[in-house]
Amino acid sequence: MGELRRDPVVGRWIIVETESPLIPSDFEKEEHRWRGGECPFCYGNEDKTPPEIEALRDPSTKRNTPGWQVRVVPNKFPALEIEGNIDRRGLGIYDLLHGIGAHEVIIQTPYHHKEIPDLLDEEVENIIKMCCRRSEDLKNDKRFKYILLFKNYGPAAGASLEHPHFQLIALPMIPKNPAEEIEGALEYFEFRERCLFCDMLIQETHDKIRIIAENKYFVALCPFASRFSFEVWIIPRIHNSFYCAMLPEEIADLAKILKDVLSRLRLLLSDPPYNFIIHTSPVNRDGELAYYHWHIEIMPKLTRVAGFEWGTGFYIVSTPPELAAKCLREVGMKKEVELKKEDKK
Amino acid sequence: MGELRRDPVVGRWIIVETESPLIPSDFEKEEHRWRGGECPFCYGNEDKTPPEIEALRDPSTKRNTPGWQVRVVPNKFPALEIEGNIDRRGLGIYDLLHGIGAHEVIIQTPYHHKEIPDLLDEEVENIIKMCCRRSEDLKNDKRFKYILLFKNYGPAAGASLEHPHFQLIALPMIPKNPAEEIEGALEYFEFRERCLFCDMLIQETHDKIRIIAENKYFVALCPFASRFSFEVWIIPRIHNSFYCAMLPEEIADLAKILKDVLSRLRLLLSDPPYNFIIHTSPVNRDGELAYYHWHIEIMPKLTRVAGFEWGTGFYIVSTPPELAAKCLREVGMKKEVELKKEDKK
Repeated sequence: MGELRRDPVVGRWIIVETESPLIPSDFEKEEHRWRGGECPFCYGNEDKTPPEIEALRDPSTKRNTPGWQVRVVPNKFPALEIEGNIDRRGLGIYDLLHGIGAHEVIIQTPYHHKEIPDLLDEEVENIIKMCCRRSEDLKNDKRFKYILLFKNYGPAAGASLEHPHFQLIALPMIPKNPAEEIEGALEYFEFRERCLFCDMLIQETHDKIRIIAENKYFVALCPFASRFSFEVWIIPRIHNSFYCAMLPEEIADLAKILKDVLSRLRLLLSDPPYNFIIHTSPVNRDGELAYYHWHIEIMPKLTRVAGFEWGTGFYIVSTPPELAAKCLREVGMKKEVELKKEDKK
Repeated sequence: MGELRRDPVVGRWIIVETESPLIPSDFEKEEHRWRGGECPFCYGNEDKTPPEIEALRDPSTKRNTPGWQVRVVPNKFPALEIEGNIDRRGLGIYDLLHGIGAHEVIIQTPYHHKEIPDLLDEEVENIIKMCCRRSEDLKNDKRFKYILLFKNYGPAAGASLEHPHFQLIALPMIPKNPAEEIEGALEYFEFRERCLFCDMLIQETHDKIRIIAENKYFVALCPFASRFSFEVWIIPRIHNSFYCAMLPEEIADLAKILKDVLSRLRLLLSDPPYNFIIHTSPVNRDGELAYYHWHIEIMPKLTRVAGFEWGTGFYIVSTPPELAAKCLREVGMKKEVELKKEDKK
């Protein structure tokens, strides 16, 4: 079992691998490579993963066999373990607790090379629905305070397996980053009596310079204070603090805009590595929060985070978000124009 | 000139390159390579850099010519510009200001391939003295609130030039990370009426399990809540909040322990990439702070920061700091034993 340790200076938690730690010779200097061997997430290899938790599958098929469209399994190398008690304790000036939590993998599709831009709208909807179902299920475990849903795409973004998948981690505390975000949104709300993200949508849809795409329920934009070049946020127009509160028609629109945005990034930046994170409210605490607004942040990893960023917490971004949004808007237009030309041939 | 923009949610500042922004085709997917061409920091190439700010050189030689040991020049591609006014302003819900600041490069040595472990103790001392002199000089500019001294070693740690160098950035505000650290240290001080780092030194030098090396004025250890495998902190035994307050004998000891620690990392982990950051107090604000204690953090970059870290602000560390410290202690012993064997031959 891992150990959760708290930094005594800034209160940041870390998870230490105590049971099977890595020694110096285990490290590759760079993790450019995919983990080798047969893919455990591919169709027909269902026995290569831990037993499935849930799957969207043909009702005539059995668990842990082919016949599925989206499949959820426990992470084979979990950052945290589901069994046990938290057991908070001190060690002189330090604090630690048992690494309790859930770590699941949501295998998006049976196809090894089909990412979100390659799927049908309904297939993307099914992935989103499964993510919501797993979050709702884990919420029932009262030990958990926060559920993080994320995706690493490409080795440079930290992915170790190529087969398209999301990861879901349930934590026994509210992590530093969401806590800060919620606190910042609350401060704004207390000052203005309005939601910061709702105000952001009003200003952005009026200015239009940072907008990439819009539909009835969602807006995709490059944020004013992007940390990374071509960073994209997808914000729902309907105010909700927890992402699973989405209506079915919102899920349909999210699938469309997500596919659109990821296609544009792929086309514009030659299939860049990225991290995808759902920013949502904590669980098992407050109800719906008037001051917090769930959203998605997609961070392409085109450059390295270096000493300046580590030392300050600030970021240097080489492409202004206004220019990034323009490129992402136009790559779509160009694509359509090219497609029209091809149609005429 | 760049623009400083404030994220409205968490208050994080970013620096946007507005004058010569990068477009999609400018990005390499991965920045593994050193920037090509002739090295502008090498001996004899003094005309390839902007005019020198200061140098430790033979008094009979002229500025911007050979004859130097440590040389400071403005960064040719500065993140911030030295001239102008801060000009804070709003833009709807957003805040921004002119990117005012200093961005200097401290060229450690005339030799392209001599890093700190390859230099004489006195040469390392001279680098530290020059860093202090530059910080003291920039402190005189009352617009600056924080001076960050850092080093990126290796392309995977974000370095773009191979020639050994430090970077120094003076900022018109106290950045998020140092502000949080100082706040955390103050909270501890208010509760215990003691410095957190002084307490940490007492506990660590008693426990010894996370200590790598010690001398009269400094302790090198793997911190209890390391973010990265083989992370090293070097903490001065004498309490000071600003690093330039070091006594000459402290500088001599820092040079020794720094050389020792970087040699051990190189030997143990096959010359790993790392970020090196001096954590110190703000300038032009309070005097000496009883609750804050300057120190150095060295973060080897053996793995990637991925969605979990970005989403939470937590870190997963695969090598417990106790094991990392043991490896780093023993690699030194092994080295000495090997050296003794060689001596006997």
